[in-house]
Amino acid sequence: MLNSKSFREYAHKMVDWMADYLDEVEKYPVLSRNQPGDLLNSLPSFAPSESEPMDVILQDMEKLIMPGITHWQSPNFYAYFPANSSYASLLGEMITACLGVNGFSWVTSPAATELEERMMDWLGDMIGIPKSWDGVIQSTASEATFVAIVSAREQLSDFQINEKGFPSGKVYRVYGSAQLHSSIEKAVKIAGLGRENYVKVEVDEKFAMKKEALGKAIKDDIEQGYVPLCVINGMGTTSSTAMDDLEMCGEICKEFGIWLHVDAAYAGAALILPEYQYLMKGIEMADSFVFNPHKWLLTNFDCSVYFVKDKHSLIRTFQISPAYLKAANDDVVKNYRDWGLPLGRRFRALKLWFVLRNFGIKEMQKVLRKHMELTQVLLKKMEGHPQIEILAPVNLNLICFRYNPGYHTEEKLNQINEKLLTRINDTGNAFLIQTLLNEKYTIRIVLGHPKHEERHVEEVWQLISEAIKQIEA
Amino acid sequence: MLNSKSFREYAHKMVDWMADYLDEVEKYPVLSRNQPGDLLNSLPSFAPSESEPMDVILQDMEKLIMPGITHWQSPNFYAYFPANSSYASLLGEMITACLGVNGFSWVTSPAATELEERMMDWLGDMIGIPKSWDGVIQSTASEATFVAIVSAREQLSDFQINEKGFPSGKVYRVYGSAQLHSSIEKAVKIAGLGRENYVKVEVDEKFAMKKEALGKAIKDDIEQGYVPLCVINGMGTTSSTAMDDLEMCGEICKEFGIWLHVDAAYAGAALILPEYQYLMKGIEMADSFVFNPHKWLLTNFDCSVYFVKDKHSLIRTFQISPAYLKAANDDVVKNYRDWGLPLGRRFRALKLWFVLRNFGIKEMQKVLRKHMELTQVLLKKMEGHPQIEILAPVNLNLICFRYNPGYHTEEKLNQINEKLLTRINDTGNAFLIQTLLNEKYTIRIVLGHPKHEERHVEEVWQLISEAIKQIEA
Repeated sequence: MLNSKSFREYAHKMVDWMADYLDEVEKYPVLSRNQPGDLLNSLPSFAPSESEPMDVILQDMEKLIMPGITHWQSPNFYAYFPANSSYASLLGEMITACLGVNGFSWVTSPAATELEERMMDWLGDMIGIPKSWDGVIQSTASEATFVAIVSAREQLSDFQINEKGFPSGKVYRVYGSAQLHSSIEKAVKIAGLGRENYVKVEVDEKFAMKKEALGKAIKDDIEQGYVPLCVINGMGTTSSTAMDDLEMCGEICKEFGIWLHVDAAYAGAALILPEYQYLMKGIEMADSFVFNPHKWLLTNFDCSVYFVKDKHSLIRTFQISPAYLKAANDDVVKNYRDWGLPLGRRFRALKLWFVLRNFGIKEMQKVLRKHMELTQVLLKKMEGHPQIEILAPVNLNLICFRYNPGYHTEEKLNQINEKLLTRINDTGNAFLIQTLLNEKYTIRIVLGHPKHEERHVEEVWQLISEAIKQIEA
Repeated sequence: MLNSKSFREYAHKMVDWMADYLDEVEKYPVLSRNQPGDLLNSLPSFAPSESEPMDVILQDMEKLIMPGITHWQSPNFYAYFPANSSYASLLGEMITACLGVNGFSWVTSPAATELEERMMDWLGDMIGIPKSWDGVIQSTASEATFVAIVSAREQLSDFQINEKGFPSGKVYRVYGSAQLHSSIEKAVKIAGLGRENYVKVEVDEKFAMKKEALGKAIKDDIEQGYVPLCVINGMGTTSSTAMDDLEMCGEICKEFGIWLHVDAAYAGAALILPEYQYLMKGIEMADSFVFNPHKWLLTNFDCSVYFVKDKHSLIRTFQISPAYLKAANDDVVKNYRDWGLPLGRRFRALKLWFVLRNFGIKEMQKVLRKHMELTQVLLKKMEGHPQIEILAPVNLNLICFRYNPGYHTEEKLNQINEKLLTRINDTGNAFLIQTLLNEKYTIRIVLGHPKHEERHVEEVWQLISEAIKQIEA
């Protein structure tokens, strides 16, 4: 069993393993080639009775675990959105794990609470959140959006749902574009509002919410006796990074007294670039805003940041103070346990502090701008290819495309593009995923790895264009 | 800015810092002496524009952060419940951070899903969960209990609340002892059931639910038209580790067709000792069970384990499958994103695997048994002290006590004991917290640190008995 001395020895080995892994991550097939059950069936059914030496465990890690890893930290990972890390963030995670503090109350580590508060100030300022708002780290955007919807539910009901449950005869509705992330629909369900009360508003040709459609949906609902509760503004949707017009949403929400939540889980990072600040026009009319530094802002998962206009909407929704959690200074400090669902909280502000200081704003901007540039390079190549069709505006660093030689039915095109994607992924040299846009099978490629450079664009372009050449051969 | 070479250098430094910290953690005052604002006011209001060198950041960590840390990993930490770690767990956290995989779907790292499944098998077997149940890691017990209540809500409503929202005229009720953790009440609120529909059942002299009281509360409610939804069985309450009778709860839930959730967040770890398995009598009548390896089972926060009789109750509640999340093998694999609230998921099974193998069951049992023994040693000393009153049965490794010389009013006793606790904590040599039992201000001491030995009992006993001597001087 590890002791202080052998821990030191193995942890040093781990550091070299970590640095080597990140240096050499491109040597692995980016998408794991495991078949279902490969790992499960190679593991014993029961925990060992006796202590096993670390050497054996680490050998098993190489042999059993590594083949089952899909390498999110590889530049060949172009799927979903990135879950980027950085060297500074890794150091932060090491210290957080070592200190092992649980910052649910101020007293349980004042530094955890106050560093979190200050990091929210820094980030809020960097992305253009109004100064009077407050921020708090949540685990995921799913959780943050759920928190927003429950806060809206409570505020609109004068906190009576909290106290008494749902009132009879009232049906609450939530609005968002048909392109929003699945976590919105999930949050509506879990909050007890009913999936059918999530109104999917029609989108325009850019996959953004139609203005007339949102206003009309709300008015129609009011006429029919529904209670409009919340509008979700998608700032950078998952399928295509479509951008709903925040000012338009804000004006409508203001008119009807509806909570406005902005889901900028991915795109929020881009707001550190002045050239994207126009997206925030109207933010003062919103009530809450989520973005994930753990996606594109070089900070390890989990670190989802929730900004809110009125912190009391959180506290009145989530606060509970049993005798064993009371502490001196409760009336003058922040107790973040009252700002969300969980009690226990990791010291996640530390890695943010390391990242924001070790990069500084300018270097972070450079990283993101590089991604935008590389995306334009790839886009030009694709636009110049006679058989590639671009299926959505390229707002950031995501391209939505398909192979379309012009003579297939839509059904056939969907089949061929699915085959094309499988062929690309099967090489092990790139991992991309699909989505559906206007019922068209769409291939998505995100250029968002911190180490991405021209070479990667070249390589992945070769891969895609070769696969296209062969797809009907 | 850090690069591969300088990361390696600093990460090696960090390893020595980590090992030194854990060796020397007792030298710090266990409870931070910071005043509100100490850290906040010493940090700049804005993020730096330029990159800052790691040396400067690490100096600031020592100077600014460390004084604001309350040392959860110190043997002088006797507060709340422990959030234990171990050397094996720390190595696991390092690798998890480095790999940075997001295991929301099987395909996004088959090893993350399959190792989690196997670790759930191992843990379930270790603590006596029925073999046919499934398990999944949640972030916190608060979240797991919320998941249980929402699952119960959905199952009882034939998943109609998910679809349509709460039906008019039905009021659902949740039952648990008046001693349960605040997270239960919080979950009831957030699930939209209404705080006043959380029925706090009377407890007996051991702070466990009264059998007649639970059955009566349910029958009365049915007569009055309420719909009983869920009973929460507290296996080891936070205030006093009281144990509700699981078999009794199970029989009542079976009779009325009510979901039974077991909250063993802390005490679940003790079930790896055969001498505590009697607590699980009746488990086959329960529907769900939560315990936190991140408390007493040597595994870093976060790692809360949720076992469930029918996994479909989770999947039908939480599943959403947008186009961009569909993948090959979806019909034969587990996609844990459908087993709870968040989409994103850290690779938390890895540290569990390291811990369970590096310790083996027998060594873990030794650690826990040592805690029970040391608690009995301290209990004997306390029982032998004429001015100490023990306020609750000592079921595990928590003692609830107060100073009571026999001649004060209850009000005065509460005041004096609050002063006593402050005096003990102000020494910096121990951190204990209070609770309320029968309106009595109660001091809690938990002996649950992996390095606890006789010396610590001696030291903390000296501290307490000295403080008592001086309290009325």
